[in-house]
Amino acid sequence: MEQRRLRIGVAGLGRAFSLMLPTFLNDPRVELVAACDPRPEARRQFEKDFDAPTYGDVPDLAADANVEVIYVASPHQFHASHTEVAAAHGKHVLVEKPIALSVEECDRMISACRDASVTLIVGHCHSFDTPYLETRKLIESGAFGSVRMIHALNFTDYLYRPRRPEELSTAEGGGAVFSQAAHQVDIVRLLAGQRATRIRATVGSWDPSRPTEGAYSAILWFEAGAFASLSYNGYGHFDSDEWTGWIGEMGNPKCPDTYGSARRRLATLVSRDEEASLKAAGTYGGASYQPPTNQGGQPRQHQHFGPLIVSCEKGDLRPLPDSVVIYGDQHIEKRNIDAPIVPRAEVIDELYAAVVEHITPIHDGEWAKDTLKICVAMLESSRQGRDIELAACEYCGDLIALSKHSGSKR
Amino acid sequence: MEQRRLRIGVAGLGRAFSLMLPTFLNDPRVELVAACDPRPEARRQFEKDFDAPTYGDVPDLAADANVEVIYVASPHQFHASHTEVAAAHGKHVLVEKPIALSVEECDRMISACRDASVTLIVGHCHSFDTPYLETRKLIESGAFGSVRMIHALNFTDYLYRPRRPEELSTAEGGGAVFSQAAHQVDIVRLLAGQRATRIRATVGSWDPSRPTEGAYSAILWFEAGAFASLSYNGYGHFDSDEWTGWIGEMGNPKCPDTYGSARRRLATLVSRDEEASLKAAGTYGGASYQPPTNQGGQPRQHQHFGPLIVSCEKGDLRPLPDSVVIYGDQHIEKRNIDAPIVPRAEVIDELYAAVVEHITPIHDGEWAKDTLKICVAMLESSRQGRDIELAACEYCGDLIALSKHSGSKR
Ligand SMILES: NC(=O)c1ccc[n+]([C@@H]2O[C@H](COP(=O)([O-])OP(=O)(O)OC[C@H]3O[C@@H](n4cnc5c(N)ncnc54)[C@H](O)[C@@H]3O)[C@@H](O)[C@H]2O)c1
Ligand SMILES: NC(=O)c1ccc[n+]([C@@H]2O[C@H](COP(=O)([O-])OP(=O)(O)OC[C@H]3O[C@@H](n4cnc5c(N)ncnc54)[C@H](O)[C@@H]3O)[C@@H](O)[C@H]2O)c1
Repeated sequence: MEQRRLRIGVAGLGRAFSLMLPTFLNDPRVELVAACDPRPEARRQFEKDFDAPTYGDVPDLAADANVEVIYVASPHQFHASHTEVAAAHGKHVLVEKPIALSVEECDRMISACRDASVTLIVGHCHSFDTPYLETRKLIESGAFGSVRMIHALNFTDYLYRPRRPEELSTAEGGGAVFSQAAHQVDIVRLLAGQRATRIRATVGSWDPSRPTEGAYSAILWFEAGAFASLSYNGYGHFDSDEWTGWIGEMGNPKCPDTYGSARRRLATLVSRDEEASLKAAGTYGGASYQPPTNQGGQPRQHQHFGPLIVSCEKGDLRPLPDSVVIYGDQHIEKRNIDAPIVPRAEVIDELYAAVVEHITPIHDGEWAKDTLKICVAMLESSRQGRDIELAACEYCGDLIALSKHSGSKR
Repeated sequence: MEQRRLRIGVAGLGRAFSLMLPTFLNDPRVELVAACDPRPEARRQFEKDFDAPTYGDVPDLAADANVEVIYVASPHQFHASHTEVAAAHGKHVLVEKPIALSVEECDRMISACRDASVTLIVGHCHSFDTPYLETRKLIESGAFGSVRMIHALNFTDYLYRPRRPEELSTAEGGGAVFSQAAHQVDIVRLLAGQRATRIRATVGSWDPSRPTEGAYSAILWFEAGAFASLSYNGYGHFDSDEWTGWIGEMGNPKCPDTYGSARRRLATLVSRDEEASLKAAGTYGGASYQPPTNQGGQPRQHQHFGPLIVSCEKGDLRPLPDSVVIYGDQHIEKRNIDAPIVPRAEVIDELYAAVVEHITPIHDGEWAKDTLKICVAMLESSRQGRDIELAACEYCGDLIALSKHSGSKR
């Protein structure tokens, strides 16, 4: 089949978009053909950069006949309605994580896309990162026996990056569980390769000026007996990138000397409005926006979401930004992974395969709904002080289903 | 008060004793005056090394009028009865971790020592290690606000070191919970400085040839709202000493090149008996026993029990073998700690202070009983699949009690 370019329209030209921009610019399987955003400065920038139309809202974008795929990168609370609008216009959807804020929203999105026979993919999410996918392949090879235990942690400055007001309110979808567990749970599920059955979690919210979850610890159990320990701390102190060779979340070499910068920058602001403006200013089209460069030749590594060890019966596997380290019964082996040519190309791999080749994606609506269910259950477990059982996914049943989902023609 | 030497009699000349031997040899506040062990070769070695009497069993050792303190380093299942015999003869007791295998045994030990007006201290346990004690002091200074979250993990080759048969049977006190959580829980309790109220744990046992817990993950909650995530994996694959600068549990520089050695050595054995003999041969008086050296001048660092981060309101604290790293709101500071002159001298600090200066120790019977309770509750939580509530310790009540326990004259 000859390769063509998927014509993408962007709904929401904010930080998520600016993180995907290097992918859209460099991956030959996609092109940006339209966008919408309420911020005029973002629309102006897009028109300038792409010589393409922009709109003030999603229905107008969805009505653009030239758009095939809508990348929904608006705030969480709009993911469901924007996806429904896109589907109603027959557009495929790539929606940012978390898919939505409730299971009911997920169901609406899934139905809308099913009814319209369009693809629904949820990403970017760090479970797309090649080192996790390679680790999954090693597990599926059977060489290491069953997955028994996963240990995942991430200590970042998440809570002190500039935020919109709703990002600091759990009731509106803010906080580390909706935004960060969405990555960590997804990765752990991908690696476990089993259906998650039960969760016990506890969340932490200890800065009254940022009144949402900044941290959590959880234990997640799986059907075939594996368990995972997940911990996240976004309070901007210890930085666990020390344990991934000082490579940051975006695959960037990281300088430990910038310690405390997020908190310091925030300390200069006087109000929530000022903070939201700071966020907008740094994002696409904003006054302090920096377009992507090609890193001055510095080879990037793969993106990641913190230190993680998968313990199988016959060895531990450790995905790293440049490799998977295999701690076998006898030897250690570092399997190097080529540096990415286009960052996040894995998202386009799945999108292109789904839209053009009709291959069922891993990160479809049902997959993401199961992750969202677990995130919601984490908050619930913490509130109720007990385990929450996770109902079986009607679609997946048993989740060795990864192999069923991916790679198979529809 | 003039310093004198406490006269110690050793009950059990095995691996624990050989790990304490450098302390007994080098700390001027103690001397070894007698020992007992059923193994004749261990008795012969002791007689030769110390020109002191040995006995075949504990009652005879306890009857030795020259002995002031009995160091109970026999297998777990004997800790209770050996402590009772010692107390009945008016000897102070230093008993190895875990204090015992049931709360009922702990109560018997505590009563026996109380009735005889002798000191009961439980150690060595890694919560004696100076970096944890220094971290505790930083927390108590109030400079960092309340403790909110602790993340503790340890990946070792615990399960593949040579073992006695009962060490591989949970019903007889074997496995990672009794032997290893005893350290990790104790450290976490010390750092939280709050009474533990609740635990959820899950244990892993996935090598049928070593049929006991080799791994666990747990969440432990505390009265003032802190929570801790504890994980342990003793299956001999990933080695978390990588995250403590390749300094091993005993404060020794560690060579990653020895990867897999524990498993390889074990693979040469044909039976459990042969394994028990291998353990005995490597220990005090055994054919392959190596007496302690002074490390060829290599400066040792402090002992430790794996990577650990304490997150307080205003900073994270990270105890390391040579320092405590403070991740403050603005800066990182590494507070160096002098290398130890005598390893594990902290145990003698508490013992000497208790026996000679009548200062209540931190690691007394009630303290250790609370740790054992949590270990038992971990197994129970995993079995029952739910949280286990921890009843308040009648003695400690609220555990800001650390300051009440230690440093105060009786
Ligand atoms: N995968 C990742 O690495 C990643 C990173 C950041 C954000 N995200 C996700 O992306 C989403 C957006 O977060 P963000 O940090 O980019 O926020 P942001 O505030 O930087 O960007 C959101 C953009 O959407 C625009 N917008 C608001 N309402 C809109 C509407 N009705 N129609 C169209 N556009 C609208 C805003 O003006 C803004 O430009 C969130 O769901 C978030 O979880 C993902
Ligand atoms: N703190 C630490 O670092 C540490 C390390 C290892 C062991 N330990 C603890 O020490 C204890 C012993 O474990 P170990 O690994 O040294 O075992 P081990 O088998 O190496 O040593 C036990 C010794 O006790 C002797 N013994 C058996 N029955 C006895 C009896 N009735 N009276 C006197 N001696 C008797 C054995 O012959 C042996 O020499 C355990 O409770 C263990 O948890 C602590």
